Parts: sequence; C-alpha cells; structure tokens
Amino acid sequence: MNGKYKALWLDDNDNLVVIDQRVLPFDQSNVIITNTLECIEAIKNMTVRGAGVIGNTAAFGIFLAARESDGNLELLEKSAKLIRESRPTAVNLMWAVDRMMNIARYSNNIISDLKAEAIKICDEDCQSSRKIANIGADIFEEIMKSKNKNSINILTHCNAGWLAIVDNGTALAPIYELKRRGINVHVWVDETRPRNQGANLTAWELSKAKIKHTVIADNTGGHLMQHEMVDVCITGADRVSRGGDVANKIGTYLKALAANDNNIPFYVALPSSTFDFEIVDGIKEIPIEIRDEAEVKFIRGVDEWQNYKEIQIVPTTSQAINYGFDVTPARLITGLISERGLCKADQREIEEMYRDIL
Amino acid sequence: MNGKYKALWLDDNDNLVVIDQRVLPFDQSNVIITNTLECIEAIKNMTVRGAGVIGNTAAFGIFLAARESDGNLELLEKSAKLIRESRPTAVNLMWAVDRMMNIARYSNNIISDLKAEAIKICDEDCQSSRKIANIGADIFEEIMKSKNKNSINILTHCNAGWLAIVDNGTALAPIYELKRRGINVHVWVDETRPRNQGANLTAWELSKAKIKHTVIADNTGGHLMQHEMVDVCITGADRVSRGGDVANKIGTYLKALAANDNNIPFYVALPSSTFDFEIVDGIKEIPIEIRDEAEVKFIRGVDEWQNYKEIQIVPTTSQAINYGFDVTPARLITGLISERGLCKADQREIEEMYRDIL
Repeated sequence: MNGKYKALWLDDNDNLVVIDQRVLPFDQSNVIITNTLECIEAIKNMTVRGAGVIGNTAAFGIFLAARESDGNLELLEKSAKLIRESRPTAVNLMWAVDRMMNIARYSNNIISDLKAEAIKICDEDCQSSRKIANIGADIFEEIMKSKNKNSINILTHCNAGWLAIVDNGTALAPIYELKRRGINVHVWVDETRPRNQGANLTAWELSKAKIKHTVIADNTGGHLMQHEMVDVCITGADRVSRGGDVANKIGTYLKALAANDNNIPFYVALPSSTFDFEIVDGIKEIPIEIRDEAEVKFIRGVDEWQNYKEIQIVPTTSQAINYGFDVTPARLITGLISERGLCKADQREIEEMYRDIL
Repeated sequence: MNGKYKALWLDDNDNLVVIDQRVLPFDQSNVIITNTLECIEAIKNMTVRGAGVIGNTAAFGIFLAARESDGNLELLEKSAKLIRESRPTAVNLMWAVDRMMNIARYSNNIISDLKAEAIKICDEDCQSSRKIANIGADIFEEIMKSKNKNSINILTHCNAGWLAIVDNGTALAPIYELKRRGINVHVWVDETRPRNQGANLTAWELSKAKIKHTVIADNTGGHLMQHEMVDVCITGADRVSRGGDVANKIGTYLKALAANDNNIPFYVALPSSTFDFEIVDGIKEIPIEIRDEAEVKFIRGVDEWQNYKEIQIVPTTSQAINYGFDVTPARLITGLISERGLCKADQREIEEMYRDIL
C-alpha cells in the first residue's frame, strides 16, 4: 500500500499525517506527526484513537523516533518506552512497539527497516480488515436467512470503522461488505459517552458510505433488543484475553448483557494483534484507563454557525470519573471474528486457533 | 402543607409556580402556570418532570382548568382529556387526573374542592416520600452491616429526588435519610442521556444537600459493579405493572441487568400511585414515549461565562431516535419500596399488599 491509508499516511517527507479525529464530524483537518513527542501527544489526546490506528501510529512513531535519533538504538529504546506507555488499555499499542523494536534491535539499516515494518503492520491490518469484512458479512447473511428477513438491524458501540482500523475497520467492516453485497442494512449507532465516538465518528463514516443508521443514546439498546429491533450486535476490541474476555469502550459490557438477555448474537471483531495471550482473566488483569473527568463534565459540538464550542454539562460542585473501557466476560460473547476466522470466546478454541504463535 | 412544596407551590393568587427544571443546574428560575394550556406545555416540554411532580402539576392543572372554565364541568372534561394525554408513560399523570375528575363530577363547590384535592395529593406524596426514606434507609443500613462496612456506595439513574416527588423524592429519599442518620454515603450519579437528568438534577440536589457523589457516563455502571464499587442500586419509576415490571427512564434496564449479573441488590422506590394495576406484562403493555430526536442531536450546557448554549453533537446527515423509557422485568428487581413497605416485584405479593384497593 506504500504507506497510504484512509486514516493515516506518510507524506512526501516521510512524516506521518493523521486525520484529526477530535474535530470530526463537523470539521476535517489533519495533524502532521514528525517526532516522538508529537506521536505520544496524538495518542494521548486522542487525535488518533481506535486500537488498530493507535498501533499503526505507534509503529510509525518508532520509525520517526529512529529518524529523530539518527538511528541511535539507546535513544530509540527510551522513545519506545514513552510511546508504549502513552495509553494503557489497547494492546495493539504495546504489540506494535514491541514488533518494531524487535526489528530495530537486529537491523543494520534501522531507519529504512523501521519504515518498511510500520508499513507492513498497516498493510497487514488492511488485509485483516478485508477478511473480517467477508467472514462477518457471511455470518450476518446467515442470521438474516435464519430469520427469513431481507434486511438486517445491527447495533454497534463506539467506533471500529476505518478511523480505528485501516482501511475498513473491524466491527464496521462486515457492515461495509453487506452494503457492497446490496443488502438492506441499518445500523443502530450508540452515541458512546463520554467522548461520543459513535455520534462523532461511526455516524460520520456511515453517512459517507450512505449506509442507513440511527444514532441513539447509550441507554437505548436494551429497549430496542427487548422489542426485536436488533438482529445482531458487533463491536471492536481494545484487548482480548486468552480466555476470551473483551476490553472495549466503556458500556460494551452493558450491551452484551442485554443481547444475552434477549438471545441476540453478540460478536466482537478484531485483528489478531488485539489478543493479549499473557492474560487469561480479562476482568481482573486488563488495565482500565481512567481519563480526565473534564471529558464527562464538558462536551464539544457546534453552534448554529457550525463553529466548535465546548460547554459545561455537570455542575461545578460535582466531581466526575471517567473510565475509558470495561471488560465483557467471554460467556456473553457469541464469537470472535478475526482475519483467521470465527472462533468461540473460549480459551481452548483460542489456543487451538493460535497454536502456531503460542 | 397548605400547597407549598419544594418543587412547586400555589402563590397568593392561587396560580401554580414550578421550578423550571430545564435550566437547572446552572440557572434557577420559576414558571407560573395559570391555565390548562400552560399546564400541558410545562409537562410536555419538561419544565416539570418526574412521575410524582407530573402528577402534582396535572392535579393543580385540573384545579386551574376548573377556575378557567368557571366550574363548567363539560369544559373541564375537555381540559382533563388534554392534560391526561400530555405525556404517555408516567401513570401518576393519569391517576391524578382521574382522581381529580372523580371529585369534580360529584362536587358542589368544584373550584375549591379541586384545590383542596390537589393539595391533598401533594401532601400524600410528601408523606409517602418520608416513609420511603425510612424504609429504604433501614434496608441500606442492613446491606452495610451485612458487608461489615461503615460506608455505602449507591448507584442511581435519572432523577427521583424532590424535584420528581415532593418533598424528599423516592430513590433519593433513603439517601437523604442516611445522611440525616450520619452515615457515610456516596452516590454514583448516572448522567442519564439524552436529557441528563442525573447530571443536571440529581447532582444538583445532592450538591445542595452536601451528599458525596460522582457523576458518571451511563456506560460506566457495569464496570463499577464488576469491581465492587457499588453496594446497591435504587431508581424511581414512572409506571409499575401489577406483575412488578418497572417502566423508568431509558437505560434503567441495562443497570438492572448489570446489578443482577454481579449480585448487587436493585431496588425501585415509588409512591403507590405509580402502580398501574390494569397492566400485568409491562414490557408488552406500558406505552413508551418517543420524544423529539433533537434531544439526542443537540445538548444544552453553559459556556465559559455561564450562559446557556445549545450545541449540535450528531452530524446533520444522521437521524436519531429518542425513546424516553424502558421496562425492567420484575425478575431483575430485588424489591419495590413504597409508603406501604417493602414488597417483592411479584404479582402475588403486590396483589396481597394492595388487596384493599384491588
């Protein structure tokens, strides 16, 4: 792919350009990342977000760090440590940094080898995304057929589209594929408080792709499921344990409970790099990021002139707390869809599917 | 009580004054209701909200309608029908209108009798609220003792404080009582999208009462419950079926699922007027209000100068849908707390407790 993807790309000077996801959907602008600190800042402040794209940005960040230190491995190790610690939950970040550093440590052409490896990581994500699209769309078509319906209602939480995983997404990849297959698909888009990635990013992606969708408050999914308005749920993941527990955007667990209570299948789509094989019990072991309470107390949107404004929505006298993720236990998940295929959220099945790398 | 309550009161001209709940927590102002149409408008646009206070406003609305029509029963019946239809889910509204009209139809001093009856309804709610406070606080103290703790973490959804049920609330009544008893209580306040009654109203009430609390995105409760940060949940109700199913603010069902999944007691507090004994299966039979999608697509808050601003938070190209309530099935509810005492959410127990009026 030559380092060009929809959510991020290398420019002619080999700097990393990323879509600024903080200003979507009402503005569109890019941020240029040229060094370690800019890379860390972009990950921390969520200029980029989504497990895959965080990993991609980190991978290119290692390349930029190597260029910055003129290939000095000792300096690069320091940069790598900082990049690796920029956010705690999405394991693709650590995975990408480790993979890049394994190249760095044994390379004679460190800068060019790291550039090539970062591109390779992104290219692999693109391929995974395409495979997930097909596997997921086949599953969704089966669900439709089993219900004798010629349309399908899919609920998703947060954003796991091409803004999160180049170049088709994970959770949204099968939805894009259904659209390509000419199937009548409608998506319930969870707003996804407190940062509203559903309303800001998923709704924007689906609008651009002319896919029918409806934005709902995060509170709404249970009611829809009780009344047979949801055929299937699908989300992405930030980290999946060897036992099949899924860390994903806060609130995912509540939707999985509602799906389970109403016998609605609940799938999670992920590239294999989102597995953390070191961890079995996701609820006990996956670190959950706590972000600034300001993300709960303030909200951004546009005024009547389409200018961004930030307003306060919680009393000054009240504190807030902002957990970024929760962990959905494996027992609530119908299946994990990766580029390797469909797999139960079950330790034995996961170990069987990945025995070549375990 | 002479027609004076914290959330609404009769002024010297016997007009109804209500706190404008749309401008809390950043502004405080009152709205004066003098006739039928103003009453309907205040209920519809949520100047007043909360099952009890909707019922109280409707009761005074019938009095004002009678005064407007100079006691003409035929005109009053028309006004009553309009008031009764102003919102569909909270049954206290229909209950209050019916009770008022039963007075009207057999009265010789219709205007003064209706004024007295509206005050009586509010006074009864005040008494119910005080009883619920004690019954609920006793239950919560037992929970604390059973865990050998000297503090308690309570999660609530939406607002069921004195802004919703004069003069102590339902869900918040036991919390106020715990505070009076000197117990170390902390409340997790669900923001409660899309209208943010938790962040706007519950947080404001608790701040005024100096009760420790933390505002959280609606997505957060499941994570907190998984990690033993919640000892008990309590909410109010807009309508409870004879079978014990609870219609309450959208999202209540998701929290009840999470509480059930983590063995955390989930209580619902209500005055008996919130029961709808005509209905058994709440999920099939309770009408769920669908409000304007603008309440999802736009949000109000204050700018840096503390001036209210409304901003858009969903792309113009996306539609939204706004269900106001959901129904939590009886099986997920630990107990119903009313002024009559604690009762299982179970048809037989409910019928036993209310056999005098069934």
